[in-house]
Amino acid sequence: MCRRCSSTRGGAGVHNPDPTPPGTPDTSPRTGAPPKSVTAPRRTPEQRTASDTVVRPGPPAPAAAPAPGIPPTAPVPATVPRQTPADALAVRTPADTVVRAGSPTPGKAPGIPPSATAAPAPPAEALAGEAVAGYLHAHAADFLRSLKLHGESGADTAAADRAAGALRRTARRIGGTLHTFRPLLDPDWADGLRTELDWLSTTLAQEHACTSRLTLLLDALTRLSGAGPGPSTTTGALPAGAARAGALLERQLTLARTRAHSAALGALGSARFHALADAVALLSSDLPLRPLAATRADTVLLPVAADAERRLLEAAAALPLGRAGHPYNADALVHGLGPAPGEEAQDAPWHRVRRLLRLHRYALEVLEPLRPGGAPPALTRAGRLLDRHRDAAEAAEAAAAAARTPRIAPATAYALGILHADQRHEVEAARFAFQEVWPGSLAIRTRTP
Amino acid sequence: MCRRCSSTRGGAGVHNPDPTPPGTPDTSPRTGAPPKSVTAPRRTPEQRTASDTVVRPGPPAPAAAPAPGIPPTAPVPATVPRQTPADALAVRTPADTVVRAGSPTPGKAPGIPPSATAAPAPPAEALAGEAVAGYLHAHAADFLRSLKLHGESGADTAAADRAAGALRRTARRIGGTLHTFRPLLDPDWADGLRTELDWLSTTLAQEHACTSRLTLLLDALTRLSGAGPGPSTTTGALPAGAARAGALLERQLTLARTRAHSAALGALGSARFHALADAVALLSSDLPLRPLAATRADTVLLPVAADAERRLLEAAAALPLGRAGHPYNADALVHGLGPAPGEEAQDAPWHRVRRLLRLHRYALEVLEPLRPGGAPPALTRAGRLLDRHRDAAEAAEAAAAAARTPRIAPATAYALGILHADQRHEVEAARFAFQEVWPGSLAIRTRTP
Repeated sequence: MCRRCSSTRGGAGVHNPDPTPPGTPDTSPRTGAPPKSVTAPRRTPEQRTASDTVVRPGPPAPAAAPAPGIPPTAPVPATVPRQTPADALAVRTPADTVVRAGSPTPGKAPGIPPSATAAPAPPAEALAGEAVAGYLHAHAADFLRSLKLHGESGADTAAADRAAGALRRTARRIGGTLHTFRPLLDPDWADGLRTELDWLSTTLAQEHACTSRLTLLLDALTRLSGAGPGPSTTTGALPAGAARAGALLERQLTLARTRAHSAALGALGSARFHALADAVALLSSDLPLRPLAATRADTVLLPVAADAERRLLEAAAALPLGRAGHPYNADALVHGLGPAPGEEAQDAPWHRVRRLLRLHRYALEVLEPLRPGGAPPALTRAGRLLDRHRDAAEAAEAAAAAARTPRIAPATAYALGILHADQRHEVEAARFAFQEVWPGSLAIRTRTP
Repeated sequence: MCRRCSSTRGGAGVHNPDPTPPGTPDTSPRTGAPPKSVTAPRRTPEQRTASDTVVRPGPPAPAAAPAPGIPPTAPVPATVPRQTPADALAVRTPADTVVRAGSPTPGKAPGIPPSATAAPAPPAEALAGEAVAGYLHAHAADFLRSLKLHGESGADTAAADRAAGALRRTARRIGGTLHTFRPLLDPDWADGLRTELDWLSTTLAQEHACTSRLTLLLDALTRLSGAGPGPSTTTGALPAGAARAGALLERQLTLARTRAHSAALGALGSARFHALADAVALLSSDLPLRPLAATRADTVLLPVAADAERRLLEAAAALPLGRAGHPYNADALVHGLGPAPGEEAQDAPWHRVRRLLRLHRYALEVLEPLRPGGAPPALTRAGRLLDRHRDAAEAAEAAAAAARTPRIAPATAYALGILHADQRHEVEAARFAFQEVWPGSLAIRTRTP
């Protein structure tokens, strides 16, 4: 629960220069909260067949031999469910980070791991597995560094927020890469780790989302009161209904943010998180690759990334872009007075494209050493517009939820109605802007020539 | 007050083939409600100077001599304010219609006057005064025919509505023509009659406006509830808040409509209206023209109409069209939560352009015999968009006014807030559509070559 506990635990487990004996550090904390899923492949060594043969990108050891020092019968944490003793082979404890260290930077454990920008760019003839491993390694290092920073932030909430944001971003990038480049990886392991990374980034995102939603709604209230966008405008200058609506939203979203903060701290202190941190720490040294990963990067990675792009393009093509291109079509508010599921169902395809676009952007980052240049600006712009779409949709829902509060004044409800409609029009505006940047703007960079 | 009385009075006064003795018919009814302004010029004959010399388009009599049979000292109605005895010279009684009859159709008084389409088109070399007089005569005849139809409608409310609508339209056209072609007319007389026509068309427009506003708002509520635009959707299918908001609006706007209906009936039965009807009946026979009207139509009417067009173009150029061209600029709702005057002040320039555009369209109708072809389609479209702008602005204000009703449920207020914002976005949508059809679309038809 406490941020200090969580940070001490995470920081010590990962970066402790004196590795604690294997097995011991995991048993005690995991009794607190049993993890929902296991980050390591839940298979016995016997299940590893030819197609699963693991190709490790680390310099000297291409074979999947267990690192010396960990006996196959290492003590299994009592509370981890559905694990056979043989599974313990693959359970990555914090001690493993150092013990198995075949990573490119084995000597840097006590210090701050290198940032993503410091990742060595593989040559064009690099193997596919090396390119993916390089990207994952850089982000795993960022993840661990952010975790350390979060632990060290103490009472500095701004620093803690920054660190949590960085954790979230790296978790999303690692998870996205595991998803897109799944054909190169042990699928069960990749899916398991991705589930955990999704859980973490979702949990950490809530607090930030509450903060920015409240800012968005209070700014909109100020704008709707004709008070101008100046930062000096206080709630006191608003008309009565707007001021009361603002106060109500502030109460509700501050409460939600506090809960999200507690949930995030709880997550960072949980055994589930420690298992995840251990798995991330192992990413750079112990990536379970399939034989496909041993082929040339450009012949494998480009088609795989193109698949991700195809899914994005198909999902975007299924959007009602023609309709969205007619401004003021009033589609976004068509369920404004109906039950909430109407709006959710309408927004879902757009949210899906947003997620696929993010995956595509991450895939382009993985391909960066092969095809430098970064994501096309139109892609970045389209992504920002879909973020705006999502933010406005959630802000509109927050206004509608606040209006369902019992015993509010009619003036408050009226202001919340205007606010809801305003944010739904913002949703519509984002769709309009998206379709303006979308068609033909995607320089299909991952297409194989 | 009663529609039947009004019609009998108006019809008898105007179309009675047996003219009552001059002076008598005006004294008794005018004691009921003193007219605010007088339709005839309030000047003594001595005030008529050289520039005012009246040129009458009627065939034989170009001089401004008072018609025989009306003594200069005709009895003045006791309740008409600010009139010197000599003013009675210019007061046009119903009897004047027949006594002074120098109109092109003097023999048609007992029957239905010819419609506007039957107006004889003056040849290209016609005098300016004849062109204007022809247009005014045709619409005066339409006015009197509509008045007769209204009197005959009895219990047929649809027929009464149609007749009132036609009265309103002809009143607007006559008033607009008096305004635009004022340089050809006795200015005081034109201004006085125009004021009365404005009063009539404004009074008659209220009932229709309430009806269409209610339809607009109930349709919007249905649409906002995601119920689809089908006409079979009843209020019973709406969510609670929307249904209650709809019921509240229905109550308030039905009450307003009933009041407007009574006001219209009262106006049609008033002495003020009868004076107006008399003045309109005299338009065709007794138009007080200035010497300018005796010049060729194309050399005078085109510059005068071009002035009206210039005023329109200047007012339109002063609109924030560049801003309106950016869809979803959220300008229309910027005072959504502020005090109502904010939105009114914002809409005023658009309403002004709407009125100027209507004047321009009427001027084109006057010029039709000289320059056939009618108003350009873009002009008609732009006019419709500004009508939509006005309707949405007034519907939004009606929703806001309903939300100020004491003791309404929060759900009702919430629905009204959404409705208000929706209509303000409709305002913004109309502005966007207007600027799309506006630039360069006006084939400046009235410009002198």
